[in-house]
Amino acid sequence: MSGFPSLINADKALNIILEYASKIKINSVKIDIENSLGRILAEDIYANIDLPPFDRSTVDGYAVIAEDTFGSSPINPTILKIVNEIECGINPNNIKPLNSGECSVIFTGAPLPPNANAVVMVENAKRKNGLVEIYKQVQPFSNVSRKGEDFKKGEIVAKKGTRIKAWHIGAITSFNIKEISVYRKIKVALISTGSELREVGSIIKPGEIINTTKPLLKALLKEKDCEIIDLGSVPDDMEKIKEKIIIGLNSSDILIITGGSSLGKKDIVPEAINDIAKPGLIFHGVAIRPGKTMGFGVNGDKLIFMISGLPVAAMISFIAFIEPAIDKILNCFPEPKPIIKARLSRRVANPVGFKSFMRVFVKRINNSYIAEPLRLTGSGILSTLTKANGILIIPENIEGYEENEEIEVLLTQPLGDDKNG
Amino acid sequence: MSGFPSLINADKALNIILEYASKIKINSVKIDIENSLGRILAEDIYANIDLPPFDRSTVDGYAVIAEDTFGSSPINPTILKIVNEIECGINPNNIKPLNSGECSVIFTGAPLPPNANAVVMVENAKRKNGLVEIYKQVQPFSNVSRKGEDFKKGEIVAKKGTRIKAWHIGAITSFNIKEISVYRKIKVALISTGSELREVGSIIKPGEIINTTKPLLKALLKEKDCEIIDLGSVPDDMEKIKEKIIIGLNSSDILIITGGSSLGKKDIVPEAINDIAKPGLIFHGVAIRPGKTMGFGVNGDKLIFMISGLPVAAMISFIAFIEPAIDKILNCFPEPKPIIKARLSRRVANPVGFKSFMRVFVKRINNSYIAEPLRLTGSGILSTLTKANGILIIPENIEGYEENEEIEVLLTQPLGDDKNG
Repeated sequence: MSGFPSLINADKALNIILEYASKIKINSVKIDIENSLGRILAEDIYANIDLPPFDRSTVDGYAVIAEDTFGSSPINPTILKIVNEIECGINPNNIKPLNSGECSVIFTGAPLPPNANAVVMVENAKRKNGLVEIYKQVQPFSNVSRKGEDFKKGEIVAKKGTRIKAWHIGAITSFNIKEISVYRKIKVALISTGSELREVGSIIKPGEIINTTKPLLKALLKEKDCEIIDLGSVPDDMEKIKEKIIIGLNSSDILIITGGSSLGKKDIVPEAINDIAKPGLIFHGVAIRPGKTMGFGVNGDKLIFMISGLPVAAMISFIAFIEPAIDKILNCFPEPKPIIKARLSRRVANPVGFKSFMRVFVKRINNSYIAEPLRLTGSGILSTLTKANGILIIPENIEGYEENEEIEVLLTQPLGDDKNG
Repeated sequence: MSGFPSLINADKALNIILEYASKIKINSVKIDIENSLGRILAEDIYANIDLPPFDRSTVDGYAVIAEDTFGSSPINPTILKIVNEIECGINPNNIKPLNSGECSVIFTGAPLPPNANAVVMVENAKRKNGLVEIYKQVQPFSNVSRKGEDFKKGEIVAKKGTRIKAWHIGAITSFNIKEISVYRKIKVALISTGSELREVGSIIKPGEIINTTKPLLKALLKEKDCEIIDLGSVPDDMEKIKEKIIIGLNSSDILIITGGSSLGKKDIVPEAINDIAKPGLIFHGVAIRPGKTMGFGVNGDKLIFMISGLPVAAMISFIAFIEPAIDKILNCFPEPKPIIKARLSRRVANPVGFKSFMRVFVKRINNSYIAEPLRLTGSGILSTLTKANGILIIPENIEGYEENEEIEVLLTQPLGDDKNG
């Protein structure tokens, strides 16, 4: 057993990881647009028609020639003759053109008749025996959505690399596109090492512990829409670990190995990785808190993350390194995260050169937000995650923050108030 | 056809909806903890043991009696005799107590031997033929996670109403709890009305349009983890709409009907609802923009949302009313959302008495954020959602904001920069 020879700077570590991640090529697959929520678009989608395909009404009312209505008011209404009623779904090519002095009853979304150029809202008119009194003038194209104003034919609708949201599904289906190309899911294999680990639901003997880190990581990977290959737990045995590493590398894009990454346990995991992977471990030990025992390796175009078996450290390694690597492989932007400005309830210190992920509880007090750093900080202390509602990330060049200093907190759970504080 | 008699204030509308939603009782179901991500806990979970169950080491190193190390330094090391090696998984009851002058090799997570009260990190010691030189003194309980410091037996781990995140799964499994009680998913039935609507993938005749609002709403409901009952599209026919409403009310907790909620289409939908539901429509017409045609009804303990068939208006109704109703039924807190402070690139006006949801594009320029309101604003203009990356919510008591005024934007997509701006 000996100490870490040196810890790599956290931002430098991330850059190295992203550099390798950017070289990975992921195939695309065709899927039904209705099943595409959260997937990453692997093609540019273009408008195949003008949208709307014709000038259409945005309200219920009367399609008119705008100029006919000029000067209309409640005391001096314009009187127009109703010549037809235009429902949605009608073929625009079959609508009789409007003449001056005429109007059409029209419904929201329906096509304007030829020559009409505006719609008077139903609220501003009154129907009387085949005629209508117009009480308010309309300008040309009032209450009209013009042909092509939403999307022009040939215009881009959604770019390659877009994380598909509800509105992309809406927009893409409006072009009658049912099948789209998305990247296949990233495959992540998980190996837990540790002779003491038992699966939840097992009978536990004194000294044995439940493997909590694996279900935690699986949940984080599920949120990132990864395909998970659970390779179970292995004891601290070189040959058994190597066997699993080979299976993991053959079946995944990313291999995560938890436990055995600290320098104590006979260095089995790093040695096993270096025996199998080419080029093998790129770095081992990062100036991050918690999670400094993390290592990163490469085998061809597969990434290997060797992270702590302690749940909090494992989660921070996930947020700091694995999640950005997944986004980079898929070449998509990170999703916006809930970040809040708050004032610290007390001074916090940061060891020089370390990037720290401090768990805090943010409360609204009157109109300001106060972040209270949690007292306990251990990598194994799960309650720091359940009791916190945010993470304060302290960059390595900051030695700490003063009491009452304004900082930014990444919110992980609802804000505290009188009810849930 | 006639105008809306009066529009209800948006916040008042929401309060009425939440009042009805709070009366709905949802059963709980037992599920495996591994499948519980995003579900809402229907029971309080308590710690059934102390966690950790014993004093354990948080590092690799040497378990010692802290007092033995006092005064140790590299030039004046304390020399201790190694009496055993304590691996993780060992039964703490079988470990020989330590005497003064002795130490144990210990690994991260392993139980301390009786009498030991601290651990010297491997970096601060050197092993030599069964002895170890200690170079740094440790205080009592240094590098030790004490029995029960994470959770004390009987302490609450996660409250009823918690939205289950990865760390809750980690924390709950640490107590070897495999099955938990969560609320069953909220059942939402969807009816689209409109004779002109066709499903994506159909052959479209001129004048017909693709139903884009339904897939958009289904994606929003999927994100809220609802069970969706898709009742298809129905033409604007009273009897057919009534038939579907009856099926919807019998199979769901929430019924959403799109289209036909404006005052033009012969008022079929409101009439159909009032014919079937008791007490029926509670209000129709809300001072919200877009989406003012929204109506809300009740049938016993079922909620009925009658919303616009236009996709943007439908989505805003979802965000403003349906999503909060779902959270209220499940009695859980809303998730923190990504909100950013930005300055407006130009003046925006808000009609008096209206709550407006304006689509904006937020860009980072140097170190500040600029929000550019989109020019087009129509309820049917899907590009306002795909091209925007945020929503500016303007309360009804605000007549507008000035150019350069600081406002808060709810981010819906990644921030713009040189690459994706």
